Amino acid sequence: MLLGDSLTQAASLPHGFAQKLSYVYNRKLDVVNRGLSGYNTKWAIPVFEQCLARRTGTNADQLFPKIQLLTIWFGANDSCLEHSPQHVPLDDFVENLDKLVHTVRSSASDYYTPWTRVVLFTPPPVNTHQRGADLTSRDPPRELDRAFDVTRQYAEAIKQVAQKHRVPIVDVWTILWEGCGQEEAKLTKYLTDGLHVNEEAYDLIYDGLMKVIGERWPELLPDNLPMVFPPWDQIINNPGLEKRILFKEASLRD
Amino acid sequence: MLLGDSLTQAASLPHGFAQKLSYVYNRKLDVVNRGLSGYNTKWAIPVFEQCLARRTGTNADQLFPKIQLLTIWFGANDSCLEHSPQHVPLDDFVENLDKLVHTVRSSASDYYTPWTRVVLFTPPPVNTHQRGADLTSRDPPRELDRAFDVTRQYAEAIKQVAQKHRVPIVDVWTILWEGCGQEEAKLTKYLTDGLHVNEEAYDLIYDGLMKVIGERWPELLPDNLPMVFPPWDQIINNPGLEKRILFKEASLRD
Repeated sequence: MLLGDSLTQAASLPHGFAQKLSYVYNRKLDVVNRGLSGYNTKWAIPVFEQCLARRTGTNADQLFPKIQLLTIWFGANDSCLEHSPQHVPLDDFVENLDKLVHTVRSSASDYYTPWTRVVLFTPPPVNTHQRGADLTSRDPPRELDRAFDVTRQYAEAIKQVAQKHRVPIVDVWTILWEGCGQEEAKLTKYLTDGLHVNEEAYDLIYDGLMKVIGERWPELLPDNLPMVFPPWDQIINNPGLEKRILFKEASLRD
Repeated sequence: MLLGDSLTQAASLPHGFAQKLSYVYNRKLDVVNRGLSGYNTKWAIPVFEQCLARRTGTNADQLFPKIQLLTIWFGANDSCLEHSPQHVPLDDFVENLDKLVHTVRSSASDYYTPWTRVVLFTPPPVNTHQRGADLTSRDPPRELDRAFDVTRQYAEAIKQVAQKHRVPIVDVWTILWEGCGQEEAKLTKYLTDGLHVNEEAYDLIYDGLMKVIGERWPELLPDNLPMVFPPWDQIINNPGLEKRILFKEASLRD
Protein backbone atom coordinates (compact mmCIF):
# COMPACT_ATOMS: atom_id res chain seq x y z
CA MET A 1 0.00 0.00 0.00
CA LEU A 2 1.31 3.38 -1.04
CA LEU A 3 0.04 6.21 1.15
CA GLY A 4 0.77 9.79 0.25
CA ASP A 5 -0.17 12.88 -1.73
CA SER A 6 -0.12 13.71 -5.45
CA LEU A 7 3.46 12.43 -5.71
CA THR A 8 2.11 8.99 -4.84
CA GLN A 9 -1.14 9.34 -6.80
CA ALA A 10 0.83 10.19 -9.96
CA ALA A 11 3.11 7.21 -9.37
CA SER A 12 0.61 5.14 -11.37
CA LEU A 13 1.82 6.93 -14.50
CA PRO A 14 4.42 5.17 -16.68
CA HIS A 15 7.69 4.81 -14.71
CA GLY A 16 6.02 5.85 -11.47
CA PHE A 17 6.91 3.52 -8.62
CA ALA A 18 3.30 2.31 -8.34
CA GLN A 19 3.38 1.24 -11.98
CA LYS A 20 6.75 -0.43 -11.65
CA LEU A 21 5.87 -2.21 -8.42
CA SER A 22 2.60 -3.43 -10.00
CA TYR A 23 4.59 -4.97 -12.81
CA VAL A 24 7.42 -6.59 -10.84
CA TYR A 25 5.05 -7.88 -8.13
CA ASN A 26 2.43 -9.18 -10.57
CA ARG A 27 1.01 -12.50 -9.33
CA LYS A 28 2.82 -12.03 -6.01
CA LEU A 29 1.51 -8.89 -4.30
CA ASP A 30 -1.15 -6.40 -5.34
CA VAL A 31 -0.22 -2.74 -5.26
CA VAL A 32 -2.84 -0.41 -3.78
CA ASN A 33 -2.31 3.26 -4.54
CA ARG A 34 -3.66 5.48 -1.76
CA GLY A 35 -2.10 8.66 -3.07
CA LEU A 36 -4.38 11.61 -2.34
CA SER A 37 -3.57 14.68 -4.37
CA GLY A 38 -3.29 17.84 -2.26
CA TYR A 39 -3.52 16.05 1.08
CA ASN A 40 -1.38 16.78 4.08
CA THR A 41 -0.88 14.47 7.09
CA LYS A 42 -3.77 16.04 9.01
CA TRP A 43 -6.30 15.03 6.37
CA ALA A 44 -4.60 11.71 5.69
CA ILE A 45 -4.97 10.31 9.21
CA PRO A 46 -8.75 9.69 9.20
CA VAL A 47 -8.62 8.48 5.60
CA PHE A 48 -5.79 6.06 6.28
CA GLU A 49 -7.72 4.40 9.10
CA GLN A 50 -10.58 3.73 6.68
CA CYS A 51 -8.16 1.85 4.44
CA LEU A 52 -7.18 -0.56 7.17
CA ALA A 53 -8.61 -3.56 8.99
CA ARG A 54 -9.52 -2.93 12.61
CA ARG A 55 -8.10 -5.59 14.94
CA THR A 56 -11.00 -5.51 17.31
CA GLY A 57 -13.64 -5.19 14.63
CA THR A 58 -15.97 -7.69 13.04
CA ASN A 59 -14.73 -10.64 11.06
CA ALA A 60 -15.25 -8.41 8.09
CA ASP A 61 -12.28 -6.30 9.07
CA GLN A 62 -10.05 -9.32 9.38
CA LEU A 63 -10.51 -9.93 5.69
CA PHE A 64 -8.97 -6.73 4.44
CA PRO A 65 -5.89 -7.46 2.36
CA LYS A 66 -2.82 -7.90 4.50
CA ILE A 67 -0.38 -5.09 3.94
CA GLN A 68 3.14 -6.46 3.54
CA LEU A 69 4.73 -3.13 2.75
CA LEU A 70 3.51 0.39 3.42
CA THR A 71 5.16 3.46 1.96
CA ILE A 72 4.31 6.79 3.60
CA TRP A 73 5.21 9.88 1.61
CA PHE A 74 4.13 13.26 2.94
CA GLY A 75 5.75 16.61 3.54
CA ALA A 76 5.38 18.27 0.13
CA ASN A 77 2.02 19.82 1.15
CA ASP A 78 2.45 20.01 4.91
CA SER A 79 5.47 22.24 4.26
CA CYS A 80 3.42 24.84 2.41
CA LEU A 81 3.92 28.35 3.81
CA GLU A 82 1.62 29.54 6.55
CA HIS A 83 -0.77 31.42 4.28
CA SER A 84 -1.65 28.18 2.49
CA PRO A 85 -4.62 26.08 3.66
CA GLN A 86 -2.42 22.99 3.17
CA HIS A 87 0.16 24.18 5.72
CA VAL A 88 0.72 22.01 8.78
CA PRO A 89 3.19 23.38 11.39
CA LEU A 90 6.38 21.36 11.67
CA ASP A 91 5.66 20.08 15.19
CA ASP A 92 2.17 18.97 14.17
CA PHE A 93 3.60 17.34 11.06
CA VAL A 94 6.04 15.29 13.15
CA GLU A 95 3.22 14.31 15.49
CA ASN A 96 0.96 13.33 12.58
CA LEU A 97 3.67 11.30 10.89
CA ASP A 98 4.33 9.61 14.22
CA LYS A 99 0.65 8.77 14.42
CA LEU A 100 0.57 7.33 10.90
CA VAL A 101 3.50 5.05 11.72
CA HIS A 102 1.98 4.14 15.09
CA THR A 103 -1.29 3.21 13.40
CA VAL A 104 0.20 0.01 12.02
CA ARG A 105 3.30 -0.41 14.22
CA SER A 106 2.11 0.17 17.77
CA SER A 107 0.69 -2.84 19.59
CA ALA A 108 -1.68 -0.38 21.30
CA SER A 109 -3.25 0.56 17.98
CA ASP A 110 -6.55 -0.83 16.75
CA TYR A 111 -4.88 -1.22 13.38
CA TYR A 112 -1.69 -2.92 14.56
CA THR A 113 -0.36 -5.33 11.94
CA PRO A 114 3.05 -6.59 13.04
CA TRP A 115 3.80 -7.99 9.59
CA THR A 116 3.55 -4.59 7.87
CA ARG A 117 6.93 -3.20 6.87
CA VAL A 118 6.96 0.59 6.80
CA VAL A 119 9.13 2.85 4.63
CA LEU A 120 9.10 6.64 4.92
CA PHE A 121 9.88 8.92 1.98
CA THR A 122 11.11 12.51 2.13
CA PRO A 123 9.59 15.07 -0.25
CA PRO A 124 11.55 16.31 -3.28
CA PRO A 125 13.45 19.58 -2.92
CA VAL A 126 11.41 22.50 -4.28
CA ASN A 127 12.57 24.55 -7.23
CA THR A 128 11.04 27.87 -6.21
CA HIS A 129 11.95 29.54 -9.53
CA GLN A 130 10.03 26.89 -11.45
CA ARG A 131 7.19 26.74 -8.93
CA GLY A 132 6.91 30.53 -8.83
CA ALA A 133 6.74 30.77 -12.62
CA ASP A 134 4.04 28.09 -12.68
CA LEU A 135 1.91 29.86 -10.07
CA THR A 136 2.39 33.30 -11.66
CA SER A 137 1.20 31.95 -15.00
CA ARG A 138 -2.12 30.78 -13.57
CA ASP A 139 -5.38 32.69 -13.95
CA PRO A 140 -5.65 34.30 -11.49
CA PRO A 141 -1.94 34.31 -10.62
CA ARG A 142 -1.06 32.82 -7.23
CA GLU A 143 1.73 33.76 -4.90
CA LEU A 144 4.61 31.41 -4.11
CA ASP A 145 3.43 28.84 -1.55
CA ARG A 146 6.60 26.94 -0.76
CA ALA A 147 10.18 27.74 0.23
CA PHE A 148 13.27 25.69 -0.45
CA ASP A 149 14.54 25.73 3.14
CA VAL A 150 11.16 25.01 4.68
CA THR A 151 10.66 21.84 2.65
CA ARG A 152 14.20 20.84 3.60
CA GLN A 153 13.28 21.19 7.29
CA TYR A 154 10.31 18.88 6.84
CA ALA A 155 12.52 16.38 5.02
CA GLU A 156 14.98 16.49 7.93
CA ALA A 157 12.16 15.94 10.39
CA ILE A 158 11.04 12.83 8.51
CA LYS A 159 14.53 11.36 8.85
CA GLN A 160 14.30 11.84 12.62
CA VAL A 161 10.88 10.19 12.79
CA ALA A 162 12.31 7.28 10.79
CA GLN A 163 15.27 6.94 13.17
CA LYS A 164 13.00 7.05 16.20
CA HIS A 165 10.80 4.26 14.85
CA ARG A 166 13.74 2.43 13.29
CA VAL A 167 12.03 2.36 9.91
CA PRO A 168 14.07 2.85 6.75
CA ILE A 169 13.63 5.80 4.43
CA VAL A 170 13.87 6.57 0.77
CA ASP A 171 15.47 9.98 1.05
CA VAL A 172 14.02 11.48 -2.12
CA TRP A 173 15.12 14.95 -1.06
CA THR A 174 18.80 13.99 -0.92
CA ILE A 175 18.70 11.69 -3.96
CA LEU A 176 17.38 14.48 -6.19
CA TRP A 177 19.43 17.23 -4.57
CA GLU A 178 22.66 15.34 -5.09
CA GLY A 179 21.55 14.19 -8.54
CA CYS A 180 21.29 17.80 -9.74
CA GLY A 181 24.62 18.91 -8.26
CA GLN A 182 23.06 20.68 -5.28
CA GLU A 183 21.85 23.64 -7.33
CA GLU A 184 18.21 24.66 -7.05
CA ALA A 185 17.89 25.90 -10.64
CA LYS A 186 19.15 22.54 -11.92
CA LEU A 187 16.26 20.70 -10.26
CA THR A 188 14.45 21.12 -13.61
CA LYS A 189 16.26 17.87 -14.40
CA TYR A 190 13.80 16.06 -12.11
CA LEU A 191 10.83 18.36 -11.52
CA THR A 192 8.05 19.15 -14.00
CA ASP A 193 6.71 22.24 -12.24
CA GLY A 194 9.08 22.85 -9.35
CA LEU A 195 7.11 20.47 -7.14
CA HIS A 196 6.17 17.24 -8.94
CA VAL A 197 8.70 14.75 -10.26
CA ASN A 198 9.28 13.41 -13.77
CA GLU A 199 9.96 9.87 -15.02
CA GLU A 200 13.69 10.13 -14.43
CA ALA A 201 13.11 11.03 -10.79
CA TYR A 202 10.53 8.26 -10.38
CA ASP A 203 13.11 5.79 -11.71
CA LEU A 204 15.55 6.89 -8.99
CA ILE A 205 12.82 6.72 -6.34
CA TYR A 206 11.87 3.20 -7.39
CA ASP A 207 15.54 2.18 -7.30
CA GLY A 208 15.82 3.68 -3.82
CA LEU A 209 12.82 1.71 -2.61
CA MET A 210 14.06 -1.57 -4.06
CA LYS A 211 17.44 -0.96 -2.41
CA VAL A 212 15.72 -0.55 0.96
CA ILE A 213 13.70 -3.73 0.41
CA GLY A 214 16.79 -5.67 -0.66
CA GLU A 215 18.84 -4.54 2.33
CA ARG A 216 16.19 -4.71 5.01
CA TRP A 217 13.70 -7.34 3.84
CA PRO A 218 15.30 -9.43 1.08
CA GLU A 219 12.53 -12.01 1.55
CA LEU A 220 10.22 -9.42 0.01
CA LEU A 221 12.19 -8.95 -3.21
CA PRO A 222 10.08 -10.04 -6.20
CA ASP A 223 12.48 -12.89 -7.02
CA ASN A 224 12.16 -14.25 -3.50
CA LEU A 225 8.36 -14.36 -3.41
CA PRO A 226 6.41 -17.30 -4.82
CA MET A 227 3.60 -16.71 -7.30
CA VAL A 228 0.18 -17.01 -5.65
CA PHE A 229 -0.97 -19.17 -8.55
CA PRO A 230 1.56 -21.55 -10.12
CA PRO A 231 3.55 -20.69 -13.24
CA TRP A 232 2.22 -22.49 -16.30
CA ASP A 233 5.32 -24.62 -16.88
CA GLN A 234 4.81 -26.12 -13.45
CA ILE A 235 1.30 -27.13 -14.50
CA ILE A 236 2.31 -28.76 -17.79
CA ASN A 237 5.10 -30.70 -16.17
CA ASN A 238 2.61 -32.26 -13.78
CA PRO A 239 -0.31 -33.18 -16.04
CA GLY A 240 -1.81 -35.64 -13.58
CA LEU A 241 -1.62 -33.08 -10.84
CA GLU A 242 -3.12 -30.23 -12.86
CA LYS A 243 -6.21 -29.68 -10.76
CA ARG A 244 -4.46 -30.21 -7.48
CA ILE A 245 -1.73 -27.75 -8.37
CA LEU A 246 -4.25 -25.12 -9.36
CA PHE A 247 -6.12 -25.48 -6.11
CA LYS A 248 -3.41 -26.22 -3.59
CA GLU A 249 -1.73 -22.81 -3.67
CA ALA A 250 -2.58 -20.30 -1.00
CA SER A 251 -5.60 -18.39 -2.15
CA LEU A 252 -5.42 -14.63 -2.50
CA ARG A 253 -7.25 -14.16 0.76
CA ASP A 254 -4.34 -15.50 2.82
CA MET B 1 -10.48 -6.94 -12.34
CA LEU B 2 -8.51 -7.93 -15.39
CA LEU B 3 -8.50 -11.69 -16.00
CA GLY B 4 -6.37 -13.15 -18.73
CA ASP B 5 -2.99 -14.47 -19.84
CA SER B 6 0.38 -12.79 -20.42
CA LEU B 7 -1.29 -10.10 -22.56
CA THR B 8 -3.10 -9.00 -19.43
CA GLN B 9 -0.20 -9.60 -17.06
CA ALA B 10 2.05 -7.35 -19.18
CA ALA B 11 -0.67 -4.68 -19.26
CA SER B 12 0.90 -3.32 -16.05
CA LEU B 13 3.82 -2.08 -18.14
CA PRO B 14 3.84 1.58 -19.24
CA HIS B 15 0.90 2.20 -21.63
CA GLY B 16 -0.65 -1.17 -20.84
CA PHE B 17 -4.36 -0.92 -20.13
CA ALA B 18 -3.86 -1.98 -16.50
CA GLN B 19 -1.43 0.92 -16.00
CA LYS B 20 -3.70 3.40 -17.72
CA LEU B 21 -6.82 2.24 -15.90
CA SER B 22 -4.95 2.45 -12.58
CA TYR B 23 -4.12 6.05 -13.31
CA VAL B 24 -7.49 7.29 -14.60
CA TYR B 25 -9.43 5.43 -11.90
CA ASN B 26 -7.11 6.47 -9.06
CA ARG B 27 -9.17 7.25 -5.93
CA LYS B 28 -12.28 5.82 -7.61
CA LEU B 29 -11.71 2.14 -8.38
CA ASP B 30 -8.75 -0.12 -7.72
CA VAL B 31 -7.42 -2.13 -10.63
CA VAL B 32 -6.59 -5.76 -9.86
CA ASN B 33 -4.45 -7.48 -12.47
CA ARG B 34 -5.16 -11.21 -12.63
CA GLY B 35 -3.18 -11.81 -15.79
CA LEU B 36 -1.57 -15.25 -15.70
CA SER B 37 1.22 -15.68 -18.20
CA GLY B 38 0.89 -18.86 -20.26
CA TYR B 39 -2.57 -19.77 -18.94
CA ASN B 40 -5.42 -21.03 -21.07
CA THR B 41 -9.11 -21.05 -20.06
CA LYS B 42 -8.88 -24.57 -18.63
CA TRP B 43 -6.32 -23.54 -16.03
CA ALA B 44 -7.93 -20.15 -15.45
CA ILE B 45 -11.30 -21.47 -14.27
CA PRO B 46 -10.24 -22.84 -10.85
CA VAL B 47 -7.94 -19.87 -10.30
CA PHE B 48 -10.64 -17.34 -11.14
CA GLU B 49 -12.99 -18.81 -8.57
CA GLN B 50 -10.32 -18.31 -5.89
CA CYS B 51 -10.25 -14.60 -6.77
CA LEU B 52 -13.96 -14.16 -6.09
CA ALA B 53 -16.32 -13.96 -3.13
CA ARG B 54 -18.60 -16.96 -2.72
CA ARG B 55 -22.24 -15.93 -2.25
CA THR B 56 -23.04 -18.75 0.07
CA GLY B 57 -19.78 -18.62 1.95
CA THR B 58 -18.80 -17.16 5.27
CA ASN B 59 -19.01 -13.47 6.02
CA ALA B 60 -15.41 -13.42 5.01
CA ASP B 61 -16.31 -13.98 1.41
CA GLN B 62 -18.79 -11.14 1.42
CA LEU B 63 -15.95 -8.77 2.07
CA PHE B 64 -13.98 -9.39 -1.06
CA PRO B 65 -13.76 -6.22 -3.14
CA LYS B 66 -16.82 -5.75 -5.33
CA ILE B 67 -15.91 -6.11 -8.97
CA GLN B 68 -17.49 -3.33 -11.00
CA LEU B 69 -15.86 -4.30 -14.27
CA LEU B 70 -14.32 -7.58 -15.34
CA THR B 71 -12.28 -7.96 -18.51
CA ILE B 72 -11.74 -11.51 -19.77
CA TRP B 73 -9.00 -11.94 -22.35
CA PHE B 74 -8.11 -15.46 -23.45
CA GLY B 75 -7.61 -17.25 -26.73
CA ALA B 76 -3.96 -16.50 -27.46
CA ASN B 77 -2.84 -19.68 -25.65
CA ASP B 78 -5.94 -21.85 -26.05
CA SER B 79 -5.45 -21.51 -29.82
CA CYS B 80 -1.99 -23.08 -29.72
CA LEU B 81 -1.66 -25.97 -32.18
CA GLU B 82 -2.48 -29.47 -30.98
CA HIS B 83 1.08 -30.48 -30.20
CA SER B 84 1.32 -27.71 -27.60
CA PRO B 85 0.45 -28.40 -23.95
CA GLN B 86 -1.39 -25.08 -23.89
CA HIS B 87 -3.81 -26.16 -26.65
CA VAL B 88 -7.51 -26.26 -25.79
CA PRO B 89 -9.85 -27.56 -28.53
CA LEU B 90 -12.18 -24.87 -29.91
CA ASP B 91 -15.35 -26.45 -28.51
CA ASP B 92 -13.81 -26.74 -25.06
CA PHE B 93 -12.57 -23.18 -25.31
CA VAL B 94 -16.09 -21.92 -26.02
CA GLU B 95 -17.42 -23.97 -23.13
CA ASN B 96 -14.72 -22.67 -20.78
CA LEU B 97 -15.29 -19.07 -21.79
CA ASP B 98 -19.01 -19.63 -21.27
CA LYS B 99 -18.24 -20.92 -17.82
CA LEU B 100 -16.04 -17.93 -16.96
CA VAL B 101 -18.82 -15.54 -17.95
CA HIS B 102 -21.43 -17.65 -16.13
CA THR B 103 -19.32 -17.58 -12.98
CA VAL B 104 -20.25 -13.97 -12.31
CA ARG B 105 -23.34 -13.53 -14.52
CA SER B 106 -25.49 -16.57 -13.85
CA SER B 107 -27.85 -16.34 -10.88
CA ALA B 108 -27.24 -20.07 -10.40
CA SER B 109 -23.54 -19.47 -9.74
CA ASP B 110 -22.02 -19.40 -6.29
CA TYR B 111 -20.08 -16.35 -7.45
CA TYR B 112 -22.98 -14.45 -9.00
CA THR B 113 -22.48 -10.68 -8.72
CA PRO B 114 -25.19 -8.90 -10.71
CA TRP B 115 -23.32 -5.60 -10.55
CA THR B 116 -20.25 -6.93 -12.37
CA ARG B 117 -20.01 -5.65 -15.93
CA VAL B 118 -18.17 -8.09 -18.20
CA VAL B 119 -16.16 -7.27 -21.31
CA LEU B 120 -14.59 -9.94 -23.52
CA PHE B 121 -11.44 -9.34 -25.54
CA THR B 122 -10.31 -11.21 -28.65
CA PRO B 123 -6.63 -12.20 -28.98
CA PRO B 124 -4.32 -10.31 -31.34
CA PRO B 125 -3.75 -11.77 -34.80
CA VAL B 126 -0.56 -13.85 -34.89
CA ASN B 127 2.36 -12.90 -37.08
CA THR B 128 3.65 -16.40 -37.78
CA HIS B 129 6.78 -15.11 -39.55
CA GLN B 130 7.78 -13.14 -36.47
CA ARG B 131 6.69 -15.87 -34.05
CA GLY B 132 8.49 -18.56 -36.07
CA ALA B 133 11.71 -16.54 -36.12
CA ASP B 134 11.48 -16.02 -32.38
CA LEU B 135 10.97 -19.73 -31.66
CA THR B 136 13.69 -20.82 -34.09
CA SER B 137 16.18 -18.52 -32.38
CA ARG B 138 15.68 -20.16 -29.00
CA ASP B 139 18.03 -22.70 -27.50
CA PRO B 140 16.91 -25.36 -28.20
CA PRO B 141 14.89 -24.12 -31.19
CA ARG B 142 11.14 -24.73 -30.95
CA GLU B 143 8.69 -25.43 -33.73
CA LEU B 144 5.93 -23.00 -34.65
CA ASP B 145 3.06 -23.36 -32.15
CA ARG B 146 0.40 -21.08 -33.59
CA ALA B 147 -1.32 -20.53 -36.93
CA PHE B 148 -2.82 -17.32 -38.20
CA ASP B 149 -6.15 -18.85 -39.19
CA VAL B 150 -6.54 -20.88 -36.03
CA THR B 151 -6.20 -17.84 -33.78
CA ARG B 152 -8.72 -16.10 -36.05
CA GLN B 153 -11.21 -18.93 -35.45
CA TYR B 154 -10.84 -18.55 -31.70
CA ALA B 155 -11.35 -14.79 -32.04
CA GLU B 156 -14.53 -15.43 -34.03
CA ALA B 157 -15.76 -17.85 -31.40
CA ILE B 158 -15.29 -15.21 -28.69
CA LYS B 159 -17.53 -12.83 -30.63
CA GLN B 160 -20.24 -15.47 -30.66
CA VAL B 161 -19.91 -16.08 -26.93
CA ALA B 162 -20.20 -12.33 -26.40
CA GLN B 163 -23.34 -12.12 -28.53
CA LYS B 164 -24.90 -15.04 -26.75
CA HIS B 165 -24.35 -13.46 -23.33
CA ARG B 166 -25.01 -9.95 -24.66
CA VAL B 167 -21.70 -8.73 -23.28
CA PRO B 168 -19.63 -6.21 -25.27
CA ILE B 169 -16.22 -6.99 -26.69
CA VAL B 170 -13.00 -5.22 -27.40
CA ASP B 171 -12.19 -6.87 -30.70
CA VAL B 172 -8.42 -6.65 -30.46
CA TRP B 173 -8.04 -9.05 -33.39
CA THR B 174 -9.92 -6.77 -35.77
CA ILE B 175 -8.52 -3.51 -34.40
CA LEU B 176 -4.93 -4.64 -35.00
CA TRP B 177 -5.68 -6.44 -38.26
CA GLU B 178 -7.30 -3.37 -39.76
CA GLY B 179 -4.68 -1.10 -38.24
CA CYS B 180 -1.91 -2.88 -40.15
CA GLY B 181 -3.76 -2.90 -43.48
CA GLN B 182 -4.77 -6.56 -43.22
CA GLU B 183 -1.31 -7.87 -44.01
CA GLU B 184 0.26 -10.43 -41.69
CA ALA B 185 3.83 -9.26 -42.22
CA LYS B 186 2.85 -5.72 -41.27
CA LEU B 187 1.69 -6.84 -37.84
CA THR B 188 5.23 -6.01 -36.67
CA LYS B 189 3.69 -2.55 -36.23
CA TYR B 190 1.89 -3.87 -33.15
CA LEU B 191 3.56 -7.13 -32.10
CA THR B 192 6.91 -7.48 -30.36
CA ASP B 193 7.44 -11.17 -31.07
CA GLY B 194 4.53 -12.17 -33.30
CA LEU B 195 2.33 -12.84 -30.26
CA HIS B 196 2.61 -10.10 -27.63
CA VAL B 197 1.61 -6.50 -28.23
CA ASN B 198 3.59 -3.26 -27.97
CA GLU B 199 2.70 0.11 -26.44
CA GLU B 200 1.00 1.36 -29.60
CA ALA B 201 -1.30 -1.65 -29.60
CA TYR B 202 -2.01 -1.30 -25.88
CA ASP B 203 -3.01 2.33 -26.52
CA LEU B 204 -5.58 1.14 -29.10
CA ILE B 205 -6.81 -1.60 -26.76
CA TYR B 206 -7.28 0.90 -23.93
CA ASP B 207 -9.15 3.24 -26.28
CA GLY B 208 -11.36 0.33 -27.35
CA LEU B 209 -12.18 -0.50 -23.75
CA MET B 210 -12.99 3.09 -22.83
CA LYS B 211 -15.25 3.29 -25.89
CA VAL B 212 -17.15 0.22 -24.69
CA ILE B 213 -17.48 1.69 -21.20
CA GLY B 214 -18.65 5.04 -22.57
CA GLU B 215 -21.26 3.48 -24.83
CA ARG B 216 -22.54 0.78 -22.56
CA TRP B 217 -21.94 2.02 -19.00
CA PRO B 218 -21.28 5.77 -19.11
CA GLU B 219 -21.87 5.89 -15.35
CA LEU B 220 -18.57 4.01 -15.03
CA LEU B 221 -16.46 6.53 -16.94
CA PRO B 222 -13.81 8.03 -14.65
CA ASP B 223 -15.34 11.51 -14.91
CA ASN B 224 -18.70 10.18 -13.80
CA LEU B 225 -17.45 8.43 -10.67
CA PRO B 226 -16.98 10.29 -7.39
CA MET B 227 -13.71 10.04 -5.50
CA VAL B 228 -13.94 7.66 -2.55
CA PHE B 229 -12.21 10.25 -0.39
CA PRO B 230 -12.96 13.92 -1.05
CA PRO B 231 -10.75 16.13 -3.22
CA TRP B 232 -8.65 18.50 -1.13
CA ASP B 233 -10.29 21.70 -2.39
CA GLN B 234 -13.58 20.41 -1.02
CA ILE B 235 -11.93 20.05 2.39
CA ILE B 236 -10.40 23.53 2.48
CA ASN B 237 -13.63 25.16 1.39
CA ASN B 238 -15.41 23.59 4.34
CA PRO B 239 -12.99 24.15 7.20
CA GLY B 240 -15.60 23.62 9.90
CA LEU B 241 -16.66 20.41 8.25
CA GLU B 242 -13.16 19.06 7.78
CA LYS B 243 -13.48 16.01 9.97
CA ARG B 244 -16.99 15.23 8.90
CA ILE B 245 -16.10 15.42 5.24
CA LEU B 246 -13.18 13.10 5.73
CA PHE B 247 -15.28 10.54 7.51
CA LYS B 248 -18.64 10.78 5.78
CA GLU B 249 -17.56 9.40 2.44
CA ALA B 250 -18.21 5.77 1.67
CA SER B 251 -15.31 3.82 3.00
CA LEU B 252 -13.30 1.65 0.66
CA ARG B 253 -14.96 -1.45 1.95
CA ASP B 254 -18.30 -0.50 0.35
